[in-house]
Amino acid sequence: MKNHLKKSHYHADMLSVEEARERIISKFHILNKEYSSILDSLGQVIAEDIYSKIMVPPLDNSAMDGFALNNEDIVSASETNIVYLNVVETIEAGRIPKKKILKGEASRIMTGAPIPEGATTVVPFEDTDENQQKKSNITKIGIKLKTEKLENIRTAGEDIKTGEKILSKGDIVTSSVIGISASIGLDKIPVFRRPKIGVLSTGNELLSPGDKIKPGKIYDSNTYTISSLIKSYGGIPIIEKFSKDKVIEIESKIENFENIDLIITSAGVSKGDYDVVKEIMENKGQINFWSVNMRPAKPLAFGYVIIKNKQIPIIGLPGNPVSAMIALDKFARFAINKMMGKRLLDRPIIKAKLDSDIINYDDRRFYARVYVYRNSENIICARPLENQSSGVLTSMHYANGLGICPSGINKLYKDEIIDVEMFNWSENITEIINLKKDN
Amino acid sequence: MKNHLKKSHYHADMLSVEEARERIISKFHILNKEYSSILDSLGQVIAEDIYSKIMVPPLDNSAMDGFALNNEDIVSASETNIVYLNVVETIEAGRIPKKKILKGEASRIMTGAPIPEGATTVVPFEDTDENQQKKSNITKIGIKLKTEKLENIRTAGEDIKTGEKILSKGDIVTSSVIGISASIGLDKIPVFRRPKIGVLSTGNELLSPGDKIKPGKIYDSNTYTISSLIKSYGGIPIIEKFSKDKVIEIESKIENFENIDLIITSAGVSKGDYDVVKEIMENKGQINFWSVNMRPAKPLAFGYVIIKNKQIPIIGLPGNPVSAMIALDKFARFAINKMMGKRLLDRPIIKAKLDSDIINYDDRRFYARVYVYRNSENIICARPLENQSSGVLTSMHYANGLGICPSGINKLYKDEIIDVEMFNWSENITEIINLKKDN
Repeated sequence: MKNHLKKSHYHADMLSVEEARERIISKFHILNKEYSSILDSLGQVIAEDIYSKIMVPPLDNSAMDGFALNNEDIVSASETNIVYLNVVETIEAGRIPKKKILKGEASRIMTGAPIPEGATTVVPFEDTDENQQKKSNITKIGIKLKTEKLENIRTAGEDIKTGEKILSKGDIVTSSVIGISASIGLDKIPVFRRPKIGVLSTGNELLSPGDKIKPGKIYDSNTYTISSLIKSYGGIPIIEKFSKDKVIEIESKIENFENIDLIITSAGVSKGDYDVVKEIMENKGQINFWSVNMRPAKPLAFGYVIIKNKQIPIIGLPGNPVSAMIALDKFARFAINKMMGKRLLDRPIIKAKLDSDIINYDDRRFYARVYVYRNSENIICARPLENQSSGVLTSMHYANGLGICPSGINKLYKDEIIDVEMFNWSENITEIINLKKDN
Repeated sequence: MKNHLKKSHYHADMLSVEEARERIISKFHILNKEYSSILDSLGQVIAEDIYSKIMVPPLDNSAMDGFALNNEDIVSASETNIVYLNVVETIEAGRIPKKKILKGEASRIMTGAPIPEGATTVVPFEDTDENQQKKSNITKIGIKLKTEKLENIRTAGEDIKTGEKILSKGDIVTSSVIGISASIGLDKIPVFRRPKIGVLSTGNELLSPGDKIKPGKIYDSNTYTISSLIKSYGGIPIIEKFSKDKVIEIESKIENFENIDLIITSAGVSKGDYDVVKEIMENKGQINFWSVNMRPAKPLAFGYVIIKNKQIPIIGLPGNPVSAMIALDKFARFAINKMMGKRLLDRPIIKAKLDSDIINYDDRRFYARVYVYRNSENIICARPLENQSSGVLTSMHYANGLGICPSGINKLYKDEIIDVEMFNWSENITEIINLKKDN
């Protein structure tokens, strides 16, 4: 597609990306809490402070395989002055010691096993003559090294104390959080529920992937990019098969979204005769139709529909695949994160040197698809993709970020240092922003 | 726990982290391919080059709602010299035009609809007198702007050409890849299978979260940290409930792992009497037991067991929760990524200024848990956590990276600039490494 569009299309009453986002975010609330199985909660957010009812570890225990004894008995111990003690017991992990340690005595002890009464230190096997003896019937042990009081002992409550707050409302559930929860005995934790997001593409031209191609038709890709992005944000996509541009068909599909937290449609929100999504929003609820001062993805519909007396928010994305993805990420992602109780974070922005000019032909803020890489001189560079048409979905695969051309700037020049918003949807970013390479 | 351990424990025959990792990686191969439903394949790796059998878009089509016409008919068109054309048809998306455009004619056309024969350009509604007319019965349209040949036309194959390679073996499946696959009609794509990872914790002292606490017992957390990390790597954890330290019990649980690609155990690989995982590996296959020159997580068992004539690799992690997590990430993660066909990438390393000394008491490479943040002068700082005991799982929650103290270095000093390997398991990293803040 040639880009000969005229500047006349610029309208001063457009919303900025930030204004449109603020308006959307303000209509969403954090969802109710649920008790989720710890393994299913990865990526969710803790919904209330969690206090421990137990100590971790519950008792003083050994950090080594060795001998538990009173350090006062071995103050003179060394390789040349081996101190011999009577072995009274072997203590494995998970069992309470039977014998108290008296003067001149020691208990053989395994890592994690509780420290017996009277013992103040643990001497590891390698600092005793244990290896020279037969393990099963040790009665005397030679100690070759002096250890200090509490050495090789993990004290009760070292990790967690009874009554201590160990997780806070707002903490993201990571593997560590899951492990900590398990360690205090919780198999379920309170988290904010994942939002259910209804996904509906519209268009008379659509076919489902897997179906036979027909003349003039195209395969529906928006349903799949949108749903997979929703998944990656932590939401649960609930897909309705695409609808033709008929009010009655779209309405009946939307009726199925009665238990949904947010409906996301694609296409049908422009100015053509078949842009019926707008019509349905007007009929069944309320629509705000905005021009957002950005490219791709200028037109954006936001409002709600009423389904069985429930007001359900709806974001109407443009139909072009690239526009739909970018608008989803710039607007719906924030709504989903807010419902999940997550912090609202922009994508990481890095500085990069432009390989070639970026032309901005209509004064909007232009998000140009770029490929960011390190050149042979270790400089972070951004190569704009040749075809910036919002219909070219492959460009989102070849790009790894969006070069930002501010509103009102007609051109970014080769060799200029520009801001690039990284997708962060691939592993590439780790390499590119690895600060180590800077030094 | 006090850290009075003596340097005598350092052994020159330890493997470096890199050597141990290389030995492990060399035993794994990429898994076989499977055809996965596009929405289920997020994060997997494309297993063979994919070529398109169709063009995307299939036909030249309109990028705007407007009028398709021959640009030679409107070379003189302007606001003051409106050119009138006869409207012969309205073309919606998804349908083949019926009428050819002759001299002096135009067809009303919707975004995405195929361009009729004879038309060379599309003039958007806003550059015509369409708004002044009743839509349904337009017969003449006034054109107020000259557009160029191909302007507002997306040409057939602009995104994808028939026969073109659109995805390559080794590409990570992102939302874009899913959308591209859908756009060429694929509902399933060839990806390398996700590895199934058997998870088994061992220990007489273990209880399951949700069970009632008992004296001397602790809750099993390793099963959950390990399984959730495996999930985050893209593998499928298959959990066996923890086993007591009894050969017969562990063996029977391991027998259940016959269709597993890698078994990961925790605990039972040290030098104590109850370290029976080693024994089972020796009995049922082969064991390499290594001291790795790192802390936490020095002891590491690696080998295989033979289950129903199949040789199944096994990584025996240490039992301490922090050691288990770090060893999993440094070794098992690479094995899993290799099986999935992913590139093998280290965690991102950044430079940070130390807030306080890090003491390394035994000459191993010490991975100290640190909290990395930006201070008020915008400098990236690392605060070592106070308790570096490998039993303190909460420290993995409060830390966001590992400060690296090289092997043989006894101390890193306050205000030194050190390398920190970021966990990358939280959103924090995005903020910290946001290069924009540097400028």
